[in-house]
Amino acid sequence: MTLKEIRKKILKGDIIGLFRLFGKDEKSMQPSEVAQIFLNLPASSAIKAFQSFPEKNKITLFPYLDSLVQKQIISEITKEEASKILNSISSDDLLIFLSNLKGVELSGTLEYLNEKNKKAAHNLLGYPKESVARLINTEFATLTKEMTIDEAMIHLRKYHRDSETANIVYVVDNEGKLVDDMPIRRLVLNEPGRKIEDIMDGFYVKLNLNDSKETAVTIFKQYDRSALPVTNDKNVLLGVLTADDVLDVEEEKNTKEMQRFGGVESLEYPYVKTPFFSLIRKRAGWLIILFLSEMLTTTAMGHFQSELDAAIVLSLFVPLIMSSGGNSGSQAATLIIRAMALNELTPKRWWYVMRREVLSGLTLGIILGTLGFIRITIWQQLHWVDYDPQHHGEYWYLVAVTVFFSLIGIVMWGTLSGSMIPIILKKFKVDPATSSAPFVATLVDVTGLVIYFTIAAIILKGTLLK
Amino acid sequence: MTLKEIRKKILKGDIIGLFRLFGKDEKSMQPSEVAQIFLNLPASSAIKAFQSFPEKNKITLFPYLDSLVQKQIISEITKEEASKILNSISSDDLLIFLSNLKGVELSGTLEYLNEKNKKAAHNLLGYPKESVARLINTEFATLTKEMTIDEAMIHLRKYHRDSETANIVYVVDNEGKLVDDMPIRRLVLNEPGRKIEDIMDGFYVKLNLNDSKETAVTIFKQYDRSALPVTNDKNVLLGVLTADDVLDVEEEKNTKEMQRFGGVESLEYPYVKTPFFSLIRKRAGWLIILFLSEMLTTTAMGHFQSELDAAIVLSLFVPLIMSSGGNSGSQAATLIIRAMALNELTPKRWWYVMRREVLSGLTLGIILGTLGFIRITIWQQLHWVDYDPQHHGEYWYLVAVTVFFSLIGIVMWGTLSGSMIPIILKKFKVDPATSSAPFVATLVDVTGLVIYFTIAAIILKGTLLK
Repeated sequence: MTLKEIRKKILKGDIIGLFRLFGKDEKSMQPSEVAQIFLNLPASSAIKAFQSFPEKNKITLFPYLDSLVQKQIISEITKEEASKILNSISSDDLLIFLSNLKGVELSGTLEYLNEKNKKAAHNLLGYPKESVARLINTEFATLTKEMTIDEAMIHLRKYHRDSETANIVYVVDNEGKLVDDMPIRRLVLNEPGRKIEDIMDGFYVKLNLNDSKETAVTIFKQYDRSALPVTNDKNVLLGVLTADDVLDVEEEKNTKEMQRFGGVESLEYPYVKTPFFSLIRKRAGWLIILFLSEMLTTTAMGHFQSELDAAIVLSLFVPLIMSSGGNSGSQAATLIIRAMALNELTPKRWWYVMRREVLSGLTLGIILGTLGFIRITIWQQLHWVDYDPQHHGEYWYLVAVTVFFSLIGIVMWGTLSGSMIPIILKKFKVDPATSSAPFVATLVDVTGLVIYFTIAAIILKGTLLK
Repeated sequence: MTLKEIRKKILKGDIIGLFRLFGKDEKSMQPSEVAQIFLNLPASSAIKAFQSFPEKNKITLFPYLDSLVQKQIISEITKEEASKILNSISSDDLLIFLSNLKGVELSGTLEYLNEKNKKAAHNLLGYPKESVARLINTEFATLTKEMTIDEAMIHLRKYHRDSETANIVYVVDNEGKLVDDMPIRRLVLNEPGRKIEDIMDGFYVKLNLNDSKETAVTIFKQYDRSALPVTNDKNVLLGVLTADDVLDVEEEKNTKEMQRFGGVESLEYPYVKTPFFSLIRKRAGWLIILFLSEMLTTTAMGHFQSELDAAIVLSLFVPLIMSSGGNSGSQAATLIIRAMALNELTPKRWWYVMRREVLSGLTLGIILGTLGFIRITIWQQLHWVDYDPQHHGEYWYLVAVTVFFSLIGIVMWGTLSGSMIPIILKKFKVDPATSSAPFVATLVDVTGLVIYFTIAAIILKGTLLK
């Protein structure tokens, strides 16, 4: 399929034909699948395609769209239509959409909302962007403990026919304070005459409006819930957080973590939707910081210039030695960062990790050092003629010994800093994934060179070096 | 709290005291929280602690424990007790436990199961380890479309009082073939006299026993379900896959992905539980491969030895230039791997990515090149005395120009290989995260050196070089 074909279908308003192009059958098409197609359309086509849907489908589809496409659509359609869509989607989807707007965009969009939604938005948008308040659904089903199961079912049928979160119902007192939560199946699986009070287990896990999204993810995982009640400081139930929104947060978090670990500031939009200069800005920052700190390697090399002048052969192994330090450091950092992210490890156990990593570094260093030693020896046999430029010179065995001990030192240093820096950052409440890469890279590279040349100075003294 | 204190509590069998040590109140203690504590206990203490629980709690706790601890417990307790626990936990938890056993361990454990569980296990363990068959719960609630809602509720109360997955019920025909699924709330929210047939929507998403766990994760995310029915090839409903198990798969997948990207073979157990030599083995593999391929850098440097002999100043910038190539490469690789993992990007769009990354590389290269040029110029002014060893020599401006152009070339090469290698690997159905790091690192380092010395040879010809 070509972009041209797609454009043609869209210009004709032929959405069904468009779906067929993507190999989809329009009847069984789910909103999430349609949204996937939208992700690959240019903005103008996405808006056109959206407008060709019947109104009912627009409302179902809208929450699944990428936030950038959502913004573009709302700014392009009429005020009446925008108002209709925004007031019809569920309250958590609305809130998430509004959370991505800023300044004038936001205040303009708030005008589209009805009084109830406007009030809720004004209230919840006052909470920090990272709090669960920004994700909650304010429509939920409540019961009181005095009801019988039969009465409860009639109540639910009457007032909560289309609550998104109705797999779980909430028992509240007459001030709206949370008393218990229970799966709706408990109503079905118990005799209709029993009272709600009798089937309560009195145990619930709740979140506070101010809790962070990260806390929510942790609690969801720990308790395997599909939805959690969210209350204010007075325990009044104000909303429900559903697992699907948390899954999105989790995915976003993983993306950010991986991007930061790879040395990129995390992107706001998908890669394919990020404008070119924004992409450059996100990358240039870290790249420049890394570059400036790596300049220390030049300084370090300059410091050993007399050694280099005397034994140019030393320079040949610089890349090999640096990369070994870097690789062992990034291995250790990966293991420790991930173990801390999964709560398998806390900074308290640094001493355990240190002993383990020093020993690992020693073992791995001996392995690589031996390989390096063998490499130089074999090379020497292959290029034994004195005037072969590949020949490492008459003191080749001393060079080999230097490389052997340097690799041990550098790999140990790599594993040690790779494992300790994330722990130290975590201790000081800095996200270990964010900042480890540049620290580890710089430390290992610069110190690696110093280790290498110092060992060389000791071993080669009186032979290659003065 | 010290390990000694913990040991003392365990020896006394004082589990409540143990919980208090961890700052937990035993009354509100959830199995997942207890499991978290177990993760930090040495094996012998974990077994002792487990044995001091009342039987009911053992059964609730067991599924939450780490697979290694589970194995140790089952091998330590009596056959009767093991049999009791394994036959009481839910069928998906049992299956997941059995999936972690091999050979004699597995056949021995199968002997502990009752006939029904043994048969189910024999059947499902025949499916590939990566298939959803290994995760399903074989207890689920079914209805037929002829029932009224009232009859359905009575049926559920009678036969499915404690189905784990009873938030969703399944409509089947008299051969057990799947007809529809519906949330149990639909029974509550409709009039009791209506027929199941009338409240069916006829739309369901299902999995096949042979589908991979990865497929399941994708489908769960796409359709926001809390459980999915799993059928055989004849559409007969055989089990249900719940979202919590999929979350675990997802987390495992993310861990593997990150570990592989960091150049470690993925660990089977948590870092703190992995035996030392197993940890070394997982790390040594990639480290050796990387080391051997990085040896090419020594070969490349050797190839340019005459240039190095003539202009030792060139060696000073080798680490800086190598690391810039590596950093820009890992940035590009991170962005592309993640975008493909989130289905934002497919290999089909390689040409779009290539144009974008060449342009990004050029821009970023010019930025770093300029910084490098400035660094050399300033350095020169600070160390202007001819005999200062830090002085870059009379042709310093040509060295600066060399560094400028080399950085542009190397950063472009880094972004290009960092972005294209994952796409090529994906095209050939190799996991892009697995293999990118070593390929990108080697390619960028070795080729980077060649680019640097070639540019140097051109620019410095007739001055520093012959």
